[in-house]
Amino acid sequence: METSRVKPGLNGVEGQKEATQAAGKPLGLVGEALRAFALALTLVAAVVMGLDKQTTTVPFQVVPTLPPLQVAVTAKWSHSSAFKYFVVANALVCIYSALSLLASLLTSARKKNLSLAVPIAIGDLIMVAVLFSTIGASMDFGLLGMHGNSHLRWNKVCNVYGKFCEKAMVAVVLVFFGLVVLAIISLHKRSK
Amino acid sequence: METSRVKPGLNGVEGQKEATQAAGKPLGLVGEALRAFALALTLVAAVVMGLDKQTTTVPFQVVPTLPPLQVAVTAKWSHSSAFKYFVVANALVCIYSALSLLASLLTSARKKNLSLAVPIAIGDLIMVAVLFSTIGASMDFGLLGMHGNSHLRWNKVCNVYGKFCEKAMVAVVLVFFGLVVLAIISLHKRSK
Repeated sequence: METSRVKPGLNGVEGQKEATQAAGKPLGLVGEALRAFALALTLVAAVVMGLDKQTTTVPFQVVPTLPPLQVAVTAKWSHSSAFKYFVVANALVCIYSALSLLASLLTSARKKNLSLAVPIAIGDLIMVAVLFSTIGASMDFGLLGMHGNSHLRWNKVCNVYGKFCEKAMVAVVLVFFGLVVLAIISLHKRSK
Repeated sequence: METSRVKPGLNGVEGQKEATQAAGKPLGLVGEALRAFALALTLVAAVVMGLDKQTTTVPFQVVPTLPPLQVAVTAKWSHSSAFKYFVVANALVCIYSALSLLASLLTSARKKNLSLAVPIAIGDLIMVAVLFSTIGASMDFGLLGMHGNSHLRWNKVCNVYGKFCEKAMVAVVLVFFGLVVLAIISLHKRSK
């Protein structure tokens, strides 16, 4: 009944070996491809949002007896805190993805353990968190833009800035896909 | 003297055994305490936000020549999509924390592998994601409430609903701490 006794040394070596493999190249070539994909998605999302601008004209009644003036108004991503955060957060995730991809490629090339398991795991989780918070903020702003808030007398604006709202939505959807990719990378090690 | 001996299990499957132990009780008693803490924080946050309501009076000018009427206005969490999402998300995280705590306790008590590593890892990540998105949405709504958006002619409202905004902020801070706890639980297994 003593069969379950573990051989001295084996346990430690096994664990270390497993940890090393997981640290060096968690997903191998697939992981690198996924990181590159996350980089591309967040980059495109940041660019789409960063270039999002629409100028349109709205009628503006100066004197009740005269016809309304047509006033040019502009919507721009930088007019909203949520969208500014969106661009900054996506740029940050791009840089992180590029760095983690580089680290992953270096580790693969040298077949060495660079002990990056912990920082990369923390980094992945922070990036997922940052992207989720930016999606939350942008979605809230988008919903307010689409429907307004009658209790606070904030009028909807997407009826005026239709194209602007559409492009912002495209950017949010892109980030959502980027998030799915990052979540896959982030979860993979645990499911082994 | 034989009572404390570990029963011979699936011998030779070292990796699986280790994974099983990590799955069943990733942090042991500390993990269970952390899950209970996350549960408490998100529960209090949901309650604080769910009870957040303020009625105040604002001057309302009906006729320019007469003094303004004092009109009672009410701010309530359910007037905002972001705050509704906040309450629902926190309730969800509470239920999840309770279930995962229960699973963790059962696993510890029976010293059995319930094969919950993957669902719990995925669940933890989803909860972190949900809470981050709700923080993003609530922060965006809070910032709009505090500063308004002059480009969209959305007036700030926290000067009128001061207490309402303060309580909402308290709820967001509570969730932030809940998130830190969940992130610690979520990251722990990788850092081993």
